[in-house]
Amino acid sequence: MKQPGIVLINTSHPGNIGATARAMKNMGLGKLCLVEPKHYPSAEATARASGADNLLAGANCFATLEDAVAECELVIGASARGRTLPLPMLDPRSCAELVQQQPDIERVAILFGRERTGLTNDELDRCHYLVQIPTDPDYPSLNIAAAVQVIAYELRIAAGAVEKPDEAEVEYASMTQMEQFYTHLQHTLVALEFLDPDNPRQLMRRLRRLFNRARPDQNEINILRGILTAANRKTR
Amino acid sequence: MKQPGIVLINTSHPGNIGATARAMKNMGLGKLCLVEPKHYPSAEATARASGADNLLAGANCFATLEDAVAECELVIGASARGRTLPLPMLDPRSCAELVQQQPDIERVAILFGRERTGLTNDELDRCHYLVQIPTDPDYPSLNIAAAVQVIAYELRIAAGAVEKPDEAEVEYASMTQMEQFYTHLQHTLVALEFLDPDNPRQLMRRLRRLFNRARPDQNEINILRGILTAANRKTR
Repeated sequence: MKQPGIVLINTSHPGNIGATARAMKNMGLGKLCLVEPKHYPSAEATARASGADNLLAGANCFATLEDAVAECELVIGASARGRTLPLPMLDPRSCAELVQQQPDIERVAILFGRERTGLTNDELDRCHYLVQIPTDPDYPSLNIAAAVQVIAYELRIAAGAVEKPDEAEVEYASMTQMEQFYTHLQHTLVALEFLDPDNPRQLMRRLRRLFNRARPDQNEINILRGILTAANRKTR
Repeated sequence: MKQPGIVLINTSHPGNIGATARAMKNMGLGKLCLVEPKHYPSAEATARASGADNLLAGANCFATLEDAVAECELVIGASARGRTLPLPMLDPRSCAELVQQQPDIERVAILFGRERTGLTNDELDRCHYLVQIPTDPDYPSLNIAAAVQVIAYELRIAAGAVEKPDEAEVEYASMTQMEQFYTHLQHTLVALEFLDPDNPRQLMRRLRRLFNRARPDQNEINILRGILTAANRKTR
């Protein structure tokens, strides 16, 4: 089974990391990434992983989310609530189908944020979509491993059920290429005096959402950077 | 939401009872029955229940399964593996649909057995159906609370209690606004000497495809046009 990475960000309780590993392995997933876990490795994680300690041993640890998703093409954030700046929302089933339709599932990451506070705005800015598990609105916050269990369950079902549409192969820009584009865009907007570095407001966040939604391919990102280079030349 | 009872039989770890209560409450279920729990009540159960301790306080405890299901009309056992004596098998989705079709959902029970050994033959003999969560065959045994989470999630969806994920209302740009943007973009690219009007190639088509895919909202299209105006100013 081709599979996405499951990325846990800044997890406080090592038991949740272990339970996540178990939930993943039950559903045939193996690629666990940890960004800045509070306590890790940990005996509690291993105990809760039950027989899935090989996933813990093989987990990749990263200092930043940027590093964790550098090679990814599609990033989906799990969120318990709607957000003020809108991102396209998926339910777990359509999320799993979308993942299954990707040309390269290995380059998909699904993010799970902190136990209490979820994902930060900066982390959301790196997401193409949010996935929201339907819950009782009065008690919406799932345990992280429980949320991973539901998503992984839908991924397993979708992997058996969904054929890929024959579509022209798309080579999406990687997250690293997107970051390089955003840096270039920001410099250009400052040079154009459109962005005031002392009062940036929400401008870059809004532009990130717009371009993440479009998911540019390699060729498109080259065109956009060509435009930025041409605009920069005029500001000299 | 009309709901079945969730029956945990002879659970060893009180943490699993607490995590089950949380999983249930997240999905809007409230009827927890405990048959001969090893340790209960327990501080560990309460801790893992997080905000679902009202379910623990309201749980019914029974000395035998017979007592627990005395008033039920339909009993479904969760099972990690096929059994020698065949019972009709359901997957979680068809299980949830079956439950939903019952004339009196309050008289349905779903049984979850012991952590290591599941349900005994005597307990299976009281079941009308088994429900099996699809897993990796090499690692099929889910944590009890994780299994309850998956079943409860499907129950919630089948109950139709599912609203669309809350998404902020989007006011998309109209086609007229998009055309005005593309005209503005084209003029700007000519002014930046990025687009040669005598040899435009496919440039505008490619950019149209990119921005149409993103479906900008009103606010985003205003930002994009603001950037174009700033770039034009520098070319004078």
